[in-house]
Amino acid sequence: MMQNGDDIVVDPSLNNSVIGIIDSGVGGLTVAKEVMRQLPRETIYYFGDTLRCPYGPRSPEEVRQYTFEMIHFLEQFPLKALLIACNTATAVALEQVQSVLSIPVLGVIKPGARAAIKATREGKIGVIGTQGTIRSQAYKIALEELHPSISVHSLACPTLVPLVENGNRSSPEAYRVVAEALRPFQNKQMDTLILGCTHYPLLADLIHQVMGAHVRIISSAEETASELSTILHHSGLLAQKKKFHRFFATGSAELFAKIASDWLGQKIYAEKVELSSYTLYRKKFFAG
Amino acid sequence: MMQNGDDIVVDPSLNNSVIGIIDSGVGGLTVAKEVMRQLPRETIYYFGDTLRCPYGPRSPEEVRQYTFEMIHFLEQFPLKALLIACNTATAVALEQVQSVLSIPVLGVIKPGARAAIKATREGKIGVIGTQGTIRSQAYKIALEELHPSISVHSLACPTLVPLVENGNRSSPEAYRVVAEALRPFQNKQMDTLILGCTHYPLLADLIHQVMGAHVRIISSAEETASELSTILHHSGLLAQKKKFHRFFATGSAELFAKIASDWLGQKIYAEKVELSSYTLYRKKFFAG
Repeated sequence: MMQNGDDIVVDPSLNNSVIGIIDSGVGGLTVAKEVMRQLPRETIYYFGDTLRCPYGPRSPEEVRQYTFEMIHFLEQFPLKALLIACNTATAVALEQVQSVLSIPVLGVIKPGARAAIKATREGKIGVIGTQGTIRSQAYKIALEELHPSISVHSLACPTLVPLVENGNRSSPEAYRVVAEALRPFQNKQMDTLILGCTHYPLLADLIHQVMGAHVRIISSAEETASELSTILHHSGLLAQKKKFHRFFATGSAELFAKIASDWLGQKIYAEKVELSSYTLYRKKFFAG
Repeated sequence: MMQNGDDIVVDPSLNNSVIGIIDSGVGGLTVAKEVMRQLPRETIYYFGDTLRCPYGPRSPEEVRQYTFEMIHFLEQFPLKALLIACNTATAVALEQVQSVLSIPVLGVIKPGARAAIKATREGKIGVIGTQGTIRSQAYKIALEELHPSISVHSLACPTLVPLVENGNRSSPEAYRVVAEALRPFQNKQMDTLILGCTHYPLLADLIHQVMGAHVRIISSAEETASELSTILHHSGLLAQKKKFHRFFATGSAELFAKIASDWLGQKIYAEKVELSSYTLYRKKFFAG
């Protein structure tokens, strides 16, 4: 492009490149929403692998493969940072992704753990997540790495993701489902609770009601967006001007657009992607 | 050092180097306390320029000179990161310090601004600080850089630092002083208040009482420590094992130790430092 008087200014730096966000489906939209809120000048390219969602029950090998397929697709665009907005993928693939990409790569687990340590006053922290995330102990490990004397209670809440996806989030029935899911925590001492699944921020108010006002609720979505802000700032990569966000899904684009428009509170268009042409990428990292 | 079987493991990396914290006096101890709480495996070397405190009324040139003198003193130790735990020094010297040091350097202003943007729901943020900090508009600029549609109310509270330093923080008189200082904010709409001075976290409870439960209080000390955690993590610099913290002061070591022991809730020893031998350093950056 040519510069023509003052009309066109080409920014040769990475600053106005985009932020890639990948997730097994729609859950990572809570992270995207927080990035939009906290960093309104940034542009997001979101990829939801809705066709193969959920990742929770899949093998680590499979989750890693799918994660790299999404990344390979997004790499055709000028990425300046990548968020893995999925707890399962963060738990099994984050370090490998960080080792092969030259841009900052963030997961959702460490930001949540860090924020919980900041918030807790008594060092007693609860974590809720899907069965896969809780089984991986990723939050417990991250918390203990940062702080040797934290006590951690973990609880899998398999009924909460269906509750969110059914869109039935403000009924009395929804309250009952949340209260039932959290019942094992009623007698546990804790002053801070990590929402260890990207779907849960949509239930934050209900969870807060059930747990009581004395328990601080930590949304990994909020914290990951804030940590992205820190990393972009310290890398000199903050954008000056937003371009159009884009949304890609492997499943129905219509369904994705409907959910995304609802959650983000704005009209969203989604593009359907066939990942088959990108699977060769996998061989680059998993050959042998 | 030699490795002898499994007994001695020498870590050749920066991980077990120390974190330098500099401040015009004792205020930055609130930041040090948060680093100790959130990163209990890290070792702090704190420098308080108590002899020349406060920096608020000094010229930017002078504050920059003093800041570099403290840094030059700390550079004799193996530093892996530096916190400028003083709002005045952050406002006038942060960028210059970042440009000459090869380690991560954090100030207290951007972390507070970032946390306020995360916390606010209505985009209405208040900032209190010393006259120097408020006059510099550093928080307002940082907030607007991150978010174009934030509304910011700023207020200098010159009576609060003396209140903290007099040690009279829980009397009814202290409540009256805080209420009086914040009176200009009574009719201002805001849902988030940044404590833009490192002394103020010691008054956080009183400030919360005066402002009301609906206003979220942001402590730059807490947020700076959290941001340090993020930066150390992403730079692969988190420590495995704490060594002894050290505290240096240009004024009375006894007085510093007394205040630090009180604020940190543990017995602190301080070392007195004469900075005159370090002033040559200044010429390196301010020659001309």
